[in-house]
Amino acid sequence: MAQALGQRRWAIGEGWIPSDSVGPGPTFTSHETACLLNAGDQNANVVITVYFADRDPAGPYRVQVPARRTLHLRFNDLDEPEPIPRNTDYASVLESDVPIVVQHTRLDSRQPPHALLSTVAYAAS
Amino acid sequence: MAQALGQRRWAIGEGWIPSDSVGPGPTFTSHETACLLNAGDQNANVVITVYFADRDPAGPYRVQVPARRTLHLRFNDLDEPEPIPRNTDYASVLESDVPIVVQHTRLDSRQPPHALLSTVAYAAS
Amino acid sequence: MAQALGQRRWAIGEGWIPSDSVGPGPTFTSHETACLLNAGDQNANVVITVYFADRDPAGPYRVQVPARRTLHLRFNDLDEPEPIPRNTDYASVLESDVPIVVQHTRLDSRQPPHALLSTVAYAAS
Amino acid sequence: MAQALGQRRWAIGEGWIPSDSVGPGPTFTSHETACLLNAGDQNANVVITVYFADRDPAGPYRVQVPARRTLHLRFNDLDEPEPIPRNTDYASVLESDVPIVVQHTRLDSRQPPHALLSTVAYAAS
Repeated sequence: MAQALGQRRWAIGEGWIPSDSVGPGPTFTSHETACLLNAGDQNANVVITVYFADRDPAGPYRVQVPARRTLHLRFNDLDEPEPIPRNTDYASVLESDVPIVVQHTRLDSRQPPHALLSTVAYAAS
Repeated sequence: MAQALGQRRWAIGEGWIPSDSVGPGPTFTSHETACLLNAGDQNANVVITVYFADRDPAGPYRVQVPARRTLHLRFNDLDEPEPIPRNTDYASVLESDVPIVVQHTRLDSRQPPHALLSTVAYAAS
Repeated sequence: MAQALGQRRWAIGEGWIPSDSVGPGPTFTSHETACLLNAGDQNANVVITVYFADRDPAGPYRVQVPARRTLHLRFNDLDEPEPIPRNTDYASVLESDVPIVVQHTRLDSRQPPHALLSTVAYAAS
Repeated sequence: MAQALGQRRWAIGEGWIPSDSVGPGPTFTSHETACLLNAGDQNANVVITVYFADRDPAGPYRVQVPARRTLHLRFNDLDEPEPIPRNTDYASVLESDVPIVVQHTRLDSRQPPHALLSTVAYAAS
C-alpha cells in the first residue's frame, strides 16, 4: 500500500501567464503550471482559489488527482468558473482532501528561446 | 471567512537589480519582485528591511497587502526612505502583522531574451 | 565523524525530459537531474519511484550515494526497470535509508541557448 | 537590537561551475553563488565543506558575514584550501555559529544570453 506524502494546503505567491508565445504549441505555449503529485492510495480532490491585486478572488476551481498519479495542471487551462486573465499578477492557494506535493513552474516563450522558473510551493503546516 | 495562511517573517537571501534592460517596459524591464499573498481577512502591514554587503541596512519600507489580495512588489519601485541601488548585492527581510506567503522572482533582460529565476522565500518559524 | 544531514523521504512534483537537444552532449543534452548529497558516514541506498499522469508508477529504481559524496543523477540515465519516457509529465519520490538532501534541476536545450530551473525538493517530515 | 533569523546549518545539493563564459566579467562570468544573510547583531563565522562524486570533501572554507550584512559568495572565488574545479558536480554544506539565511544562485553564460537558477538552500533543523 502506498503511503500518503505531502500536505493538504499549499500556496504559490507568484503567478503571471504571458499572453504571447513563440514556437509550436502546446509545448512552447507560455504557461504557468502547478505540478501536483498524489503518491497515496486515495484520489485527491483539490480546490484552487486564485487571488489578484485589485479584485476578489476567483474560484473555486476543482481538479482531481487520481491515486498514485501526477497532474501537471496548466493555469492556462482553468475555465470554470472563469479563465485566468493573461498578463495579470495573481497568486493561488491549493487545498486537497488528502496529502499532495505541489511544485510551481513557468515556461515563458514570449521571446524565443524560452525561459524557465520553478520552485516547490509553500506548504502550509 | 478566509483562513490566514503563511508566516509573519520571511527572508530573501538573493537580491540584485540589473541596471540594464532590453525590450519594452515595464514588462521587460529587469526587475526583482517579492510576490506577497495575503489569503486572510485582515489587511497585512508589511515592513521590509534591505541588507547590503558594506553599509547599514536600508528601510523600513512599508507596504500594505489588502485582505484576500496579492501584491507583486518590485524592489525597483521602492523609493521611501531611499531607492535600492542597481547592480548591487542585497538581501531582504519582510515582516508582516498577519500571516502572508512570499515568493521571490527576478526577470533579467540585460541580454534578450530574458532569464528568470524564482523561489519561495525562507519562512522564519 | 561526519554528521548525517537531511531527510529520508523526498518528492519532486515537476518532471519532464525534453526529447530534443541542441549542442554538444552530454553537457548540453536536455536533462532532468536529482542532486543527492550524502554528508553522513554511511552509504545511502536510495529507491526512486516515478509517477505519471495516466499509468501506474515505474520503479523501483535503485542508486547508491556513498558516504560523504554527492550524486547528480540524471533521470535520463535511469534504465532499470525501464527508461523514463521523453516529453512526458512525471513526478518522483526518493526514499533513502539514511538522511540525504535532494535538489532538482532541469537543463533544457531544445532551443539554444539553454534554459535552467532548480529547486530544493520537498522534504517529507 | 536586530533579531537573529534563520538556521545554523544549510545544504546545497546542486553545484556546477561552468568553465566557459561569454560576456564582460565579472558580472557575466559564469558563477555559482551562495547568498548569505546575517540579519543579527553578531558576526557570523561560516565554515563550508564541498562534496564531490568521487573524492573526499574539500574544505574547510571559512568566510565571515558581518552583523546586519549580506555576503553573496561566489564559489568561483574560494581558493583556500583549494579552488573548486570547473565543470565538476559538487554539493556543499554551510555551518554558521549564529543563524543565517542561505539562497543558491547560478548564472550560466556559456551560451549568451545567460541562464539563471535560484532556490533557497535546505535548512537543516
